[in-house]
Amino acid sequence: MTRIWNVYLSGEIHTDWRAEIQKGCESAGLPVEFSAPVTDHGASDDCGVAIMGEEPNKFWHDHKGAKLNTIRTRSLLGEADIVVVRFGDKYKQWNAAFDAGYAAALGLPLIVMHGDEHQHALKEVDAAALAVIDTPAQVVQILDYVINGKLPA
Amino acid sequence: MTRIWNVYLSGEIHTDWRAEIQKGCESAGLPVEFSAPVTDHGASDDCGVAIMGEEPNKFWHDHKGAKLNTIRTRSLLGEADIVVVRFGDKYKQWNAAFDAGYAAALGLPLIVMHGDEHQHALKEVDAAALAVIDTPAQVVQILDYVINGKLPA
Amino acid sequence: MTRIWNVYLSGEIHTDWRAEIQKGCESAGLPVEFSAPVTDHGASDDCGVAIMGEEPNKFWHDHKGAKLNTIRTRSLLGEADIVVVRFGDKYKQWNAAFDAGYAAALGLPLIVMHGDEHQHALKEVDAAALAVIDTPAQVVQILDYVINGKLPA
Amino acid sequence: MTRIWNVYLSGEIHTDWRAEIQKGCESAGLPVEFSAPVTDHGASDDCGVAIMGEEPNKFWHDHKGAKLNTIRTRSLLGEADIVVVRFGDKYKQWNAAFDAGYAAALGLPLIVMHGDEHQHALKEVDAAALAVIDTPAQVVQILDYVINGKLPA
Amino acid sequence: MTRIWNVYLSGEIHTDWRAEIQKGCESAGLPVEFSAPVTDHGASDDCGVAIMGEEPNKFWHDHKGAKLNTIRTRSLLGEADIVVVRFGDKYKQWNAAFDAGYAAALGLPLIVMHGDEHQHALKEVDAAALAVIDTPAQVVQILDYVINGKLPA
Amino acid sequence: MTRIWNVYLSGEIHTDWRAEIQKGCESAGLPVEFSAPVTDHGASDDCGVAIMGEEPNKFWHDHKGAKLNTIRTRSLLGEADIVVVRFGDKYKQWNAAFDAGYAAALGLPLIVMHGDEHQHALKEVDAAALAVIDTPAQVVQILDYVINGKLPA
Amino acid sequence: MTRIWNVYLSGEIHTDWRAEIQKGCESAGLPVEFSAPVTDHGASDDCGVAIMGEEPNKFWHDHKGAKLNTIRTRSLLGEADIVVVRFGDKYKQWNAAFDAGYAAALGLPLIVMHGDEHQHALKEVDAAALAVIDTPAQVVQILDYVINGKLPA
Amino acid sequence: MTRIWNVYLSGEIHTDWRAEIQKGCESAGLPVEFSAPVTDHGASDDCGVAIMGEEPNKFWHDHKGAKLNTIRTRSLLGEADIVVVRFGDKYKQWNAAFDAGYAAALGLPLIVMHGDEHQHALKEVDAAALAVIDTPAQVVQILDYVINGKLPA
Repeated sequence: MTRIWNVYLSGEIHTDWRAEIQKGCESAGLPVEFSAPVTDHGASDDCGVAIMGEEPNKFWHDHKGAKLNTIRTRSLLGEADIVVVRFGDKYKQWNAAFDAGYAAALGLPLIVMHGDEHQHALKEVDAAALAVIDTPAQVVQILDYVINGKLPA
Repeated sequence: MTRIWNVYLSGEIHTDWRAEIQKGCESAGLPVEFSAPVTDHGASDDCGVAIMGEEPNKFWHDHKGAKLNTIRTRSLLGEADIVVVRFGDKYKQWNAAFDAGYAAALGLPLIVMHGDEHQHALKEVDAAALAVIDTPAQVVQILDYVINGKLPA
Repeated sequence: MTRIWNVYLSGEIHTDWRAEIQKGCESAGLPVEFSAPVTDHGASDDCGVAIMGEEPNKFWHDHKGAKLNTIRTRSLLGEADIVVVRFGDKYKQWNAAFDAGYAAALGLPLIVMHGDEHQHALKEVDAAALAVIDTPAQVVQILDYVINGKLPA
Repeated sequence: MTRIWNVYLSGEIHTDWRAEIQKGCESAGLPVEFSAPVTDHGASDDCGVAIMGEEPNKFWHDHKGAKLNTIRTRSLLGEADIVVVRFGDKYKQWNAAFDAGYAAALGLPLIVMHGDEHQHALKEVDAAALAVIDTPAQVVQILDYVINGKLPA
Repeated sequence: MTRIWNVYLSGEIHTDWRAEIQKGCESAGLPVEFSAPVTDHGASDDCGVAIMGEEPNKFWHDHKGAKLNTIRTRSLLGEADIVVVRFGDKYKQWNAAFDAGYAAALGLPLIVMHGDEHQHALKEVDAAALAVIDTPAQVVQILDYVINGKLPA
Repeated sequence: MTRIWNVYLSGEIHTDWRAEIQKGCESAGLPVEFSAPVTDHGASDDCGVAIMGEEPNKFWHDHKGAKLNTIRTRSLLGEADIVVVRFGDKYKQWNAAFDAGYAAALGLPLIVMHGDEHQHALKEVDAAALAVIDTPAQVVQILDYVINGKLPA
Repeated sequence: MTRIWNVYLSGEIHTDWRAEIQKGCESAGLPVEFSAPVTDHGASDDCGVAIMGEEPNKFWHDHKGAKLNTIRTRSLLGEADIVVVRFGDKYKQWNAAFDAGYAAALGLPLIVMHGDEHQHALKEVDAAALAVIDTPAQVVQILDYVINGKLPA
Repeated sequence: MTRIWNVYLSGEIHTDWRAEIQKGCESAGLPVEFSAPVTDHGASDDCGVAIMGEEPNKFWHDHKGAKLNTIRTRSLLGEADIVVVRFGDKYKQWNAAFDAGYAAALGLPLIVMHGDEHQHALKEVDAAALAVIDTPAQVVQILDYVINGKLPA
């Protein structure tokens, strides 16, 4: 019975990096299952009030939604074998750093993904990681190595 | 024997919010001891190479330093009764969000401190907090209530 | 392989809210498996003495039964991905609040379900929850969002 | 060095049972330190809005307060050697049952205190307890026995 | 998918109580899988020296064997949903009591099985149990109730 | 500041082995504090009914008492640095073996003390121990070595 | 459903001991699945730089690789039922001893495999093991006994 | 009240590196308390048989001693804030690597100390460390920075 590796893909939701990793893993035939937060930005923002009723105050609007998203995160991130956190070009992305800290405290293997321009600002996050890379292809290569011991050609 | 409350003050290091909280707690006579990361920005950046030798590559320069800082954090944050994380006006402050996630995963009571302008971007972090406030005075009031059951006049 | 979500339905046993949630999830095709305490009130009260012998003292009669029920709870609640606790109109329902505290201490995602009339009395329980709602339909909507990222139409 | 026993007194706040236990322990010279939730009902209800700003909606008014109270509970109850939970005559007291469940999940020794009239309704809570009694004097006797091995005259 | 309950049967190895429980569960169609220590007394005593070489000193002879048996116990008992420990008529059976203590510390639901003649001597063990019974039929009844909510006819 | 070592002395209560160990440690000037179950046999048996009311049934008489004793054990044994469990000549002493299993599951360093005549029957308990000895003097020697690195003359 | 036992084979990578154990288990029809570190020495050394870019400094070259290998180890070793660590004739093999310490701290059953010539140097590692043997055939015999209770003919 | 930092000094026992670190910390006035294994080589080897009786077989001679040493290690290393492990020039030093793995699994901050000649062989151990250095002076500098935020002049 082949072991399935659970990989949680946290962070940036405005580029298709998750799809690229998944496609790369499929091409390589890797026994990996991915999970992630809800990546539909609008749904993620409004889920709380859509289900539990409107809030005039933006704080509680967001609060209700963020807590629903936490239900998902706590299960999927918490049971992952590997957590990948990507920091993109835009926004504060504090939720990504929060997830990285959460994973680190649980002792989960952490891969951090970002461009050079964020290197200094992410040094504490990188210091908690077992790998720091920049591209989806490198994530696929890491998974291929970790699972199969196979290096890129 | 009076119980001493250990409070870890994480995050922004460019304003004197830590000193204000400490002064306020002293005025109120609260049995609190504070800890924090090293708040000297230069020392915090360069500690690794200063002790363990220069690195030509900025990534490893930062890496060495960030890991030394982690030795401090893991003990002081990890044994805190309450973790306060402040987000200021400048920089990415991913280390602050990382600490918040770390504290959340350990089940430590979390107080998040930030201005309204960051409300939406911090919604996931706020959702993990037991209190979200904006001023050092409010932190002092919370501690006075939590410890003594005393409300502000 | 589709991930199956384990949802424990604790609390009130005098209305058919569990069946409604299950029906709703089936309609929505959600990959959910439910567990619950024994909901036959009589069996739940008398199981101890029925199997382990009569007790003249009501305290021990109840004690024997409550402990048998604990065998079930500890396994099923303890391994749940999500715990839903419902407070109904009647009785003290201290066992429901006990389960909520138990789930909270284990760090399990908690959904609390009750009408407005109980809002103030349940504030501590609600404060530990990731969602507070009133109807079975909302539980189904939450599960559909948490699992599939899908909002109600 | 005499070991100090930390005893958390949770639950009912409308009679002076805590004072009676404390007085009894002082008379007996027991090395015990007590902690408890904030027992000023008004302060406990309004602490959140008093410090963090008014809320038009009662749910959020209570939510803010209940979370502040949680900061206190999580530290004091969480570090107790023994947790005593008392159920009185009035109100739903779901927070008391919540605390009992929380303590049980942490594996803390639990003493439950209530009159006979609540026996059946509290059977699940009692089943998790190491002692079920009705009077403050009995709590003092239990502590005297547990600490000194001394039985009541 | 039916949940399978893992039940570890510890203790006495000189009567066929394990087989009776298994037969009873099969008759009742219960979704239970059983595990147990090695119940061949001779093999259990001599496994260490048979594989790892003779020892002139009985202490080390037994030590080697007991440690091999621990490999089995730690996995099977440690992952059980329910631990049943039976005390029979003969021998000291300290390993049974040891297993009960081990299960209790792990928070595993414990069923203790013994005749009346051992009641007083086993009071500490019984106090840690969620059920105390005397016959294999009662274990089957408990499992039927815990799993299906079904009481004996 | 000298580190104080907490040593829990479990098991046999009919000889003065605890006093001998304590006297030996005092002579050697070792920084050790001892704790133990209540060693007054009668008090230990009857504490439950003395405080919580008579029981006509011996099982519940013992049950109430054993649970009170558990309050003590869970704190004192649970926080020990070292657990010593002694098996004497008489009685079944299942509570001693239960404590040994409890300590083993918590990962506490375990010293088992018994005569040769119990060697075979205690092999599983001994296999979980870090030392197996027979006399109070040896316990003192072990503590002197563990704490000070000093061997017997 | 047959229980599958996960066995992690750590340590020496220059002889075919893993293959021998696997072959022996297949012959014996044992329900075992094996995992191991990447045993291609070159790949294991260079994986970091091959995927994440060259390093002029050997320390960081090795650091990148060792951390990738840690991703694999933390999952596979961490979820093993049994950890076997073999020490061979050559090299320092500090990683093997590190894995043994890691497994011991997690409470995983540990089998240590080495020749007599290393006995004294490995005494601390052996002291943490549940079995110490020298040949692959003995590992197979242990697994056959632990799983099936069967002793070698 | 000044926080005292507990630092465990594991590994090599043939040079005076521990004394140098202690002297350096005293000079710097650092609030540090050190602990270590028994560093008298002979006592450490023979403690088991000296207290618990001779063994003709060297394996058991060593086994008894190594387990006594484990009593000390488990307490002192397990409660350390920081673990320093030094690898010297001689011997296999597998116990040092074992301690490093043990500390890593417990999540304790790890400082590894060794000369360049061991760099490649220690890469897995170094990868688990928060600092890798070569001299006692560097350990003192790290402690001064971690505790006081002070860099070397």
